[in-house]
Amino acid sequence: MQGNAAVVGVGESIYYRAGRSPHDAFQLACIAIRNAIADAGLQPGDIDGIVSFMHNGADAARLASVVGFGNLRFASQAWSGGGNLGAQALLLADAAVCAGHADHVVVFRALDQGRAGRFGQARSITPAVDEFAYLSPFGAAAPVVRNAIIANKFMHKYGISQEALADISLACYAHAQRNPRAVMYGRPLTRDDYHNSRWIAEPLHLYDCCQENDGATAVVVTTSERARDMRQPPAFILGGAVGVESRAGLWALADNAYPNGRFRSVGAHLWNTTGVKPADVDVAQFYENFTGTTLMAIADIGFCEPGDVEAFVGDGNLQWPDGGLPLNTSGGNLAEAYIHGFQLVNEAVRQVRGQSTCQVADVELSLSVAGPGTPPSSAVLFAKHV
Amino acid sequence: MQGNAAVVGVGESIYYRAGRSPHDAFQLACIAIRNAIADAGLQPGDIDGIVSFMHNGADAARLASVVGFGNLRFASQAWSGGGNLGAQALLLADAAVCAGHADHVVVFRALDQGRAGRFGQARSITPAVDEFAYLSPFGAAAPVVRNAIIANKFMHKYGISQEALADISLACYAHAQRNPRAVMYGRPLTRDDYHNSRWIAEPLHLYDCCQENDGATAVVVTTSERARDMRQPPAFILGGAVGVESRAGLWALADNAYPNGRFRSVGAHLWNTTGVKPADVDVAQFYENFTGTTLMAIADIGFCEPGDVEAFVGDGNLQWPDGGLPLNTSGGNLAEAYIHGFQLVNEAVRQVRGQSTCQVADVELSLSVAGPGTPPSSAVLFAKHV
Repeated sequence: MQGNAAVVGVGESIYYRAGRSPHDAFQLACIAIRNAIADAGLQPGDIDGIVSFMHNGADAARLASVVGFGNLRFASQAWSGGGNLGAQALLLADAAVCAGHADHVVVFRALDQGRAGRFGQARSITPAVDEFAYLSPFGAAAPVVRNAIIANKFMHKYGISQEALADISLACYAHAQRNPRAVMYGRPLTRDDYHNSRWIAEPLHLYDCCQENDGATAVVVTTSERARDMRQPPAFILGGAVGVESRAGLWALADNAYPNGRFRSVGAHLWNTTGVKPADVDVAQFYENFTGTTLMAIADIGFCEPGDVEAFVGDGNLQWPDGGLPLNTSGGNLAEAYIHGFQLVNEAVRQVRGQSTCQVADVELSLSVAGPGTPPSSAVLFAKHV
Repeated sequence: MQGNAAVVGVGESIYYRAGRSPHDAFQLACIAIRNAIADAGLQPGDIDGIVSFMHNGADAARLASVVGFGNLRFASQAWSGGGNLGAQALLLADAAVCAGHADHVVVFRALDQGRAGRFGQARSITPAVDEFAYLSPFGAAAPVVRNAIIANKFMHKYGISQEALADISLACYAHAQRNPRAVMYGRPLTRDDYHNSRWIAEPLHLYDCCQENDGATAVVVTTSERARDMRQPPAFILGGAVGVESRAGLWALADNAYPNGRFRSVGAHLWNTTGVKPADVDVAQFYENFTGTTLMAIADIGFCEPGDVEAFVGDGNLQWPDGGLPLNTSGGNLAEAYIHGFQLVNEAVRQVRGQSTCQVADVELSLSVAGPGTPPSSAVLFAKHV
C-alpha cells in the first residue's frame, strides 16, 4: 500500500441478467482476465500471480492452462462476502508484488448466478453449521430481509426518510444511462417510478435492490515502478483496509448492530494511513447490495454523521456532473451489474484514468467502499499521483 | 520472508480416522486454533488476521464470533490442493504481518472427511467444467491412479525400484511409533508387511498411500520482532516459494509431466532467496499423498539427481536418529495424519523448537515441502536463528 503498487489493467466480460450468459463462470473469468491483460499491454505469459474473490470454480491451474499464464508463483483468495468488494483481494495482490512474490497479479471475480444459484434467494437451512438457522424461522431467510431489518433500525434511530434511499437509487440509474456496459442502460428511472415500485422488504423497494447477474471482471496489479512505463495511466493503490464483523449471522439483530464497529475502524485506518480526509475524495463507488447498506457506509466511513446522511445524499449531491460526491458513476450494482461488487473497482480505476462514461473532472483520489450490511467491510483508495 | 516473520504458536485437534470425529470441521478448526493461540501465550482477542487453506466451511465471521477474535483486519485463503501444503498460506500471513495489515495471524486447515466426503475417492465427472473428464473414462478417476501413472513413469525413466517407495513409508511409520498424536501410533510396519500389502494402483501399495482423516491444525504467525519476546522459541520463516503447474488435469499424462518445471522453479527460488543449500537442511517434512510424490519432490527440490534418489532414500538415510535427512518425523501423512498435509508445518516448527517426539539434535534449518504430484508445488524453510 502507500502507493507502492498500482492497477494497470481492467477488463470485463459482457454483463448479463442472471441466466442469460452463454458462458459459465470459468469462461467468463477467462474473458475478463484476457481483456484486463490486453488493456495493460501485457501478454498472458507475463502473469505470475492470481487472486480470486471467494470460491468461483475457476482454479489457478485451469486458468493458467486456458489463459496461458507463465510461471504462476502466487495464488490466493480473498475471503468473505460482498462487503469485501475486492479490497482484500487488491491488498493481497499489493502485498505479493511489493514483497516480490510475483510481478503481475490478476485479481478477478466471476459470477454465473444463472447456473450456480442466486445470491438473493433464501438460503437453505442447515442448523448444525449455520447461524442463519436462528434467523430463518422468523422469515429472515433471504439477504434482503436481513438487510431491511438493519436499514429500518438505522433510519428509525436517525430520523431518515425513504427519500434518502431513493437518492442513491436515482444516482445509480442516472449514471447507467451513459454507460453502454450497464444492464440497465436505456432504462431510466424517475422518483415516481421508484416510489411506485413494489416493496421487496420494507423499507426496500424493488429499485433499492441490486441486480443478479452473470459476468466477470478483472484487474492487473503490479509495482508502481513498473506501472509508470505501461500502456495505461496507473491507478496507484494509496491505501486499503478490511474489517470482519465478529458477530456472525446474529449480528444483524444485535443491539449494537449499528453502528458497525468494524466498519468504523476501516474508515479510521484508511484515513490515518493515507493522510487523506473524506472531503479530499473526488469520486466514490459504494457497494449497494441494498441502498440501506450504502447509506450507512457513507456515514460510517466518515463523509458525514449518521444523522446528517439524508442531507448529504440529497439535492443531487451524488449525481454526476454537478454533485459534490458523484457516486457509482458506472451505474453501480443496482444499474450496471452486480459482479459481487467487484466491477466497482474497475470503475474507480477508470475515474483515475479519465475513462469513465461519467468522468469527473481532474480526479486525483478515487474511492471504492463496501459494507456494512455484510460481515466484512472494506475500502480501497486509488490515486492518480503518489 | 527473509526471517521477518515467525511461527509462534502451533495447535491441533485430536486426529481421527475419517468418520470417527465427534466434531465437524468448524468445531475441529476452533479446537486447533484455540490450542495454537494458547501455545503462543496469546488470547483469542489478540488475533486480528486469519488465513485458511482452501474452502473448509469455517468462515472468518463465524470463527471470530466463536473463538473470540478481536478486530479482524485480514482474512484470506490460500488456493489449490495439497501440493501447496501451507506454504502459500504462511506466505500470506507473513506478508500481512510484515506489511502491518495484521499483528497476529492464525493459519489453519480443518478436515472432516467423514462428513464432507473423501479426498481419495473417484471424482464425479462433470465434463463441461473439469479436465478430469478426459482421464476418468480411462479409469484414472481417483487421485491414487493418476499419481500411480506419474510415479510409474518416473521410476521407469530413472530405473528406481519398489524399495525406494518402501523406504519412505518405513521412515514415516517408524517415526509415528514415538508420536502419541499419530493415528498409526502402536502400529509398526515392517518391510515384509509393506511388500505383502495389496496394490492400490501399481506401483503404489496400501502403505504408499496417505490416510484419510478428520482433524484440524493451526499456527500463529507474527513479526519476528514480537516473536522474540513470546512464550515459545520462534520458528522464523526464512523463505518460501509456490509454483502452480499450468497444465491442469491433463498434465499428469503429458510427455513433459516429469520433471515438473514449476517445482524445479520453487526449489531454485527457495535456495536463491535464502542463500541456503539443500545440504544445510537438518530435518525435512515432505508431503506424501503417495510415496511417489515424495520421491520426485526430494529430487526436484535439489537433494539429489533423479537417478540418485533411490540411493539417497536408502540405508536408513531418512530415519531418525541416525539418518542424514530425517524425514516426516511425526509420522507424516502416511502415519500421523493427513490434514491435507498442513500438520507437517506444525512438525517443522516443533523441530526448530526442540519439541518433536523424534527430535533431531541442534536443528537450525527445518524444511517443509509439497509436490509435485498435484498442480501446485511449494516449500517453506524455518530457521532457529536469523
